[in-house]
Amino acid sequence: MSTTILEQARNGVITEEMKTVADAENLSAEHIREAIVNGTVVILLSQKGPKKSVGIGRGLRTKVNASIGTSTDIIDRPMELQKAAIAQQSGADTLMELSTGGDLNAIRQAVIEMVDLPVGNVPLYQAAADAKERFGSMVEMTDDLLFDIIENQCNDGISFMAIHCGINQMTLERLRNQNYRHGGIVSRGGAFLVSWMEHQKKENPLFDQFDRLVDILKRYDVTLSFGNGMRAGAIDDSSDRAQIQELIINCELADRAREAGVQAIIEGPGHIPIDEIETNVKLQKRLSGEKPFYMLGPITTDISPGYDHITAAVGASIAASHGTDFICYVTPAEHLALPYPEDVKEGVMAARTAAHIGDMIKNDDRKQDKAMSLARRQLDWEKQFKLSLDPEKARTIKEERQSSDDNKCSMCGDFCAINIANEHFSIDSKR
Amino acid sequence: MSTTILEQARNGVITEEMKTVADAENLSAEHIREAIVNGTVVILLSQKGPKKSVGIGRGLRTKVNASIGTSTDIIDRPMELQKAAIAQQSGADTLMELSTGGDLNAIRQAVIEMVDLPVGNVPLYQAAADAKERFGSMVEMTDDLLFDIIENQCNDGISFMAIHCGINQMTLERLRNQNYRHGGIVSRGGAFLVSWMEHQKKENPLFDQFDRLVDILKRYDVTLSFGNGMRAGAIDDSSDRAQIQELIINCELADRAREAGVQAIIEGPGHIPIDEIETNVKLQKRLSGEKPFYMLGPITTDISPGYDHITAAVGASIAASHGTDFICYVTPAEHLALPYPEDVKEGVMAARTAAHIGDMIKNDDRKQDKAMSLARRQLDWEKQFKLSLDPEKARTIKEERQSSDDNKCSMCGDFCAINIANEHFSIDSKR
Repeated sequence: MSTTILEQARNGVITEEMKTVADAENLSAEHIREAIVNGTVVILLSQKGPKKSVGIGRGLRTKVNASIGTSTDIIDRPMELQKAAIAQQSGADTLMELSTGGDLNAIRQAVIEMVDLPVGNVPLYQAAADAKERFGSMVEMTDDLLFDIIENQCNDGISFMAIHCGINQMTLERLRNQNYRHGGIVSRGGAFLVSWMEHQKKENPLFDQFDRLVDILKRYDVTLSFGNGMRAGAIDDSSDRAQIQELIINCELADRAREAGVQAIIEGPGHIPIDEIETNVKLQKRLSGEKPFYMLGPITTDISPGYDHITAAVGASIAASHGTDFICYVTPAEHLALPYPEDVKEGVMAARTAAHIGDMIKNDDRKQDKAMSLARRQLDWEKQFKLSLDPEKARTIKEERQSSDDNKCSMCGDFCAINIANEHFSIDSKR
Repeated sequence: MSTTILEQARNGVITEEMKTVADAENLSAEHIREAIVNGTVVILLSQKGPKKSVGIGRGLRTKVNASIGTSTDIIDRPMELQKAAIAQQSGADTLMELSTGGDLNAIRQAVIEMVDLPVGNVPLYQAAADAKERFGSMVEMTDDLLFDIIENQCNDGISFMAIHCGINQMTLERLRNQNYRHGGIVSRGGAFLVSWMEHQKKENPLFDQFDRLVDILKRYDVTLSFGNGMRAGAIDDSSDRAQIQELIINCELADRAREAGVQAIIEGPGHIPIDEIETNVKLQKRLSGEKPFYMLGPITTDISPGYDHITAAVGASIAASHGTDFICYVTPAEHLALPYPEDVKEGVMAARTAAHIGDMIKNDDRKQDKAMSLARRQLDWEKQFKLSLDPEKARTIKEERQSSDDNKCSMCGDFCAINIANEHFSIDSKR
């Protein structure tokens, strides 16, 4: 059995991937190795190279995931490949392939083949689809079917898997006892597992046979991202007992995964009012011993469908500023429909913007902002485009509404504040 | 001389406008009257009715302003009227008419004629344009020209004016002494006034002849919005001494305006990293004695031009949650070009979304979110559209990618978490 990156780090070995991540983050390889040993950083790997080595965790740039994939309603493989390509071009750090319709093996393999990014997924989706096909209903899924699928997907080159291990009977009891859930269960993996457990009257196999799961992931050195199946899908359900119970179980299991040599990420919500975001981040960090936190959004109001890339950018900015390491993008189609390629672009750019807003606080990462300020004051447009997160969009907007003078923009024209002030009032910049 | 709404409130009179605002905000008219007396709330009025009466301040819904107007580069009156109409349709609460190119009187009058919203502006823009035309340069503006323009604009039916009274020689000295301003001066009014003061070697007439200004505004009962000419245009310049000095002066002058019977709003920045937003709000509230705070954005990173409606939505959400009462939208064209009508729509929707995210915290305004959660759990799509901030966009996204089943959406299809959980696991909602 090969040694995992976590085991290598423990053995004092600095791998090529640690060096790559260290270079990208402007840190030392030894720092990265220690952070992997401590569990505050993970590096996503793949059986099918060459893939970018992406580090996620404390002290690193906040990373952005883009999710793509078919549904049973819209099965259009070329469109999903196009979405994967757009996500990568737009600067996503990772991709989750979440198809539930069509030939799931074929699309997964095609996406992994095509992109340079680490690819993650949720194996429960294929398990549910296969169980429906073979046994007539997803609640008839067998343990063997589930674990076989996980192994096949690892073998395809998946880098990280979101797996809902923390929904056990104890978590479910908390949900029952609290007597409310206005928005219900909105995690697909969560809803499926809860239904399976109720129908089978059994414990969640991903909890009950956790060592079996870890054994598979270890063989392929796949990072285990502990799914947040109890996350709120409504502001009114935020930070409830069921969610926190699942978080506690996930944190315990993450320790066990790491003991066995498997890297761990913990996932979090969901729908949260902005004054509870810091609490969610601090709680995950304390309960998990500072493990990487992967937040889905978070979405900060329920009433702006069509603009959930924005409601999530608000949440992700605040979350990242308080320590969230990894954020899943949300597209304008969220809550409404399967995203189109243009939604993927919007979602990635909103999430990258949010990640940077957070990194300005969390990592004091402001060099590019300062350079942009100076370029603006100098009215150096080429430099401004170069420093933009989306140079092409910035250039397009500027140039399609060209000013009479290259030294200005069409917003202010002759009344450009910067030109006026530069002409009449000079301020040295000694700081 | 007629009595202003502030004087009426002091005399114990409850006007029709106070009743309208009270009804809209679900508060008593007496509460509104007292808040006007205390200066924590203003009601924007107009000489040219019928205009909506809009209240701004503590305890009220956060309001959104949309700014439109020509530049010297793009003078297209029909497009500006279209932008005004779109801003109103999209749910902006106020409109600022900020034209600097073409026949400024004609476009102002046309906009005021067309919309039902209170219209604000920045009189310095026309003063600068007229001075340039009459005297060859904007720094040759005379005091009489400036005050005559202010009176003419009041007479046209302007409801509130952003006027940069707090940039005086003392403020300017702070700017000189601090020895930096990476982004320079980015307020057009601020840059123009500073240049005028430097060229003329005189005090700012809007500070020096403040009583003359207040006397005009009082005659038309126009609300004075104290401009933030020293606001940072770069994250690196945030919360600097010049900005805070101007804020202090503005707060002093606001007291004088109110003594004379004129309502006051204080404006704030600008470009702020998210961990300084709360400080800016608290400082304005303390220094001003809880007067309405009008923030421009705030924009929370410099490096995402093309997405500044999003960087501002992040800032506005946090600002509103801490007490900001009024936010100026930012469009995707910010820093790049004059906005097109579609940019106005995007800007208003991003700002309205942010205002609500803040109001969920500040005013515990969550009824609509809760209703949306229930509609989602019941998969009642018509109700979801009705509860959306932009019903039309939500419907379009849902319906252009229709699901095989009206009870689902094309994102999840057969794997709809809500359907699955509703089928197998029932959770009472007793809360």
